[in-house]
Amino acid sequence: MLNFKLSLPTEVFFGKGQIKVIGEQVKRYGGNRVLICYGSRRIKEQGIFDVVASHLTEKGISFCELGGIEPNPRITSVREGVRLVKEHDIDFLIAVGGGSVIDAAKGIAAGAFYNGDPWDLYTGRGKVSTALPLATVLTLAATGSEMNSNSVVSNLETKQKLAIHYACVKPKFSILDPTYTFTVPPLHTAAGVADIMSHVWEQYFSPTPGTFLQDRLAEAILQACITYAPIAIKEPENYEARANLMWASTLALNELIAYGKVTDWGTHVIEHAVSAHYDVTHGVGLAILFPHWMSFALDERSLDKFFALATNVWKVPFAADRMEVAREGIARTRVFFMNLGLPARLREVGVPEAALPAIAKTVVEFGPVGTYRKLGEEAVLEILKRAY
Amino acid sequence: MLNFKLSLPTEVFFGKGQIKVIGEQVKRYGGNRVLICYGSRRIKEQGIFDVVASHLTEKGISFCELGGIEPNPRITSVREGVRLVKEHDIDFLIAVGGGSVIDAAKGIAAGAFYNGDPWDLYTGRGKVSTALPLATVLTLAATGSEMNSNSVVSNLETKQKLAIHYACVKPKFSILDPTYTFTVPPLHTAAGVADIMSHVWEQYFSPTPGTFLQDRLAEAILQACITYAPIAIKEPENYEARANLMWASTLALNELIAYGKVTDWGTHVIEHAVSAHYDVTHGVGLAILFPHWMSFALDERSLDKFFALATNVWKVPFAADRMEVAREGIARTRVFFMNLGLPARLREVGVPEAALPAIAKTVVEFGPVGTYRKLGEEAVLEILKRAY
Repeated sequence: MLNFKLSLPTEVFFGKGQIKVIGEQVKRYGGNRVLICYGSRRIKEQGIFDVVASHLTEKGISFCELGGIEPNPRITSVREGVRLVKEHDIDFLIAVGGGSVIDAAKGIAAGAFYNGDPWDLYTGRGKVSTALPLATVLTLAATGSEMNSNSVVSNLETKQKLAIHYACVKPKFSILDPTYTFTVPPLHTAAGVADIMSHVWEQYFSPTPGTFLQDRLAEAILQACITYAPIAIKEPENYEARANLMWASTLALNELIAYGKVTDWGTHVIEHAVSAHYDVTHGVGLAILFPHWMSFALDERSLDKFFALATNVWKVPFAADRMEVAREGIARTRVFFMNLGLPARLREVGVPEAALPAIAKTVVEFGPVGTYRKLGEEAVLEILKRAY
Repeated sequence: MLNFKLSLPTEVFFGKGQIKVIGEQVKRYGGNRVLICYGSRRIKEQGIFDVVASHLTEKGISFCELGGIEPNPRITSVREGVRLVKEHDIDFLIAVGGGSVIDAAKGIAAGAFYNGDPWDLYTGRGKVSTALPLATVLTLAATGSEMNSNSVVSNLETKQKLAIHYACVKPKFSILDPTYTFTVPPLHTAAGVADIMSHVWEQYFSPTPGTFLQDRLAEAILQACITYAPIAIKEPENYEARANLMWASTLALNELIAYGKVTDWGTHVIEHAVSAHYDVTHGVGLAILFPHWMSFALDERSLDKFFALATNVWKVPFAADRMEVAREGIARTRVFFMNLGLPARLREVGVPEAALPAIAKTVVEFGPVGTYRKLGEEAVLEILKRAY
């Protein structure tokens, strides 16, 4: 186990009706003029926007709005948000939505304290150590952005998808009401679960020895996903299922299971390259790629880890041939995603076979990716071919 | 799952050598005149005190000390601490030790802001909402006090052992260096592990349905204890074992596995009554009592939970007779503690059989205890008799 520092400043208000605290909490952080950020019209149509707005008004807090933030949020939305912050002298941000809206709001929060184009923060040309205070109202269980410092934003002009990890953009508080995810359609629910599970695997597969406790915690989150994803898809208003998935999404990427470990993130880099070229939903891309990364990574050195995954998470019965048990775990991963209605092959989501070498090149643009397995161009291409 | 609020303000610096941050961190919270609280001479003999002192001096921070804080810390130590705080105009507290020292320091932190006898805070006659800032340097993996709001203190005059749960006494930061536990003797290591596992069970066994994720997280912590306790006892300087146990102790009682659940704590109340009458080490008392509470609580209604505990944690093989599997899990619990060198019977730790009815009466002094099983006087006496 490596040394680590735990810092979890974000407060979470979890459960049905927790939105009622939003006004007093914004006040607590000195918020008087709020910018509410959101993406799809669903937020307005289903009344979540109005509920937030009325709670703010009740406390004498004024607000303006920035809607239409895209999945894979764009730097243009961040720029527009920063413009609104300056125009209306905004002192607090609320992101109502999933990871994309939250990530854009984090960009706005940081950009508000930067003199220049906020894209500089993502390319590394600029830096800030202070940001506008930010809160989130989560409507999709997937990215974990509601309790971490990550923001991933795309620039269509430069064809780049880049991330910042600033402690100062961690939300002050997040409201996690599982009923807000009742209307998430089956495919998005499934893609969200694939995203959560992928986050866990990127941290579970680590070159760091001696992290037994973290690994068992990771398996706990995976088991929750496996148990509740099929239920949430079949019964979208099953509170227990939605609550367990929402809480799983937060714990999967709030650092809890990463403390004391080097993490991998190789498959994420591959998926980012795929979805940058061919508009593939992030979770769908991960569901396609991860089982093939696993097959690629399974060997004598990694057998213990894959055996643990198979038996502890997928409940594959013990057998003398441990390699066979490990393979069965990977097979069950693939079947699980297929049963959730997710595509299993890159060819199914519009990626042409001829494009694979170019994608592989993009992945390793800045050198090999991953830490559990260091993947060079050849390895990446091999995984892409298996996933095709 | 119930609604909950997550608030984890304590920062944790985990790992070998982390003590180096203590000076700058104390400064960060405005500390200039520190009271260092500790218990046993081990803290001085092994040089931990001197390391803390030198790091403070280096940053120009002055300090005085309060040593000799007892296991089951007494209100007299808290009073003495409050006196020292006032005499030396102390603005920051550092607890160097295990749960007892930390609990006493929390009492001092709160007492410093109370005009009157600090014991009033424990009896409920008085209240505070502010406390002196506090940090901990942990030297024993057991109570989890390093990241929570609990303080349990004894009053020998009134023969009471009472608790406060003030958010304001949560440590600002805690330093968790597993090497500081290398010298903890086998019996104390074992008792600490029994304490950790008991904390988990008090939260695992809950009347709240639908807390799948929390339950799997709880099982993760139990598995870490089972795996590493025997290793830490056999090889006291095994870093991996000490690190996993230390991290397990913190996660077992920092609220993580309690969010969204009603918790039980019945067995803890029974143990407090036992150790209040007969000076039994808390963890030892719990190791004796918990398997018998489990046998008492096992029935058709609780079978699913005990079956999960047996198969997921104790790795009892699946079998058609689920009740038999559950019983085997409880049997393994008892054997596990015995193999760690812990007593298995109340008669072994100086509790006379004739005292059991009086102990049972004390336990239910304010009404039945526990929530998973509500225990009245008769039930408590039955558990005590089985444990005798």
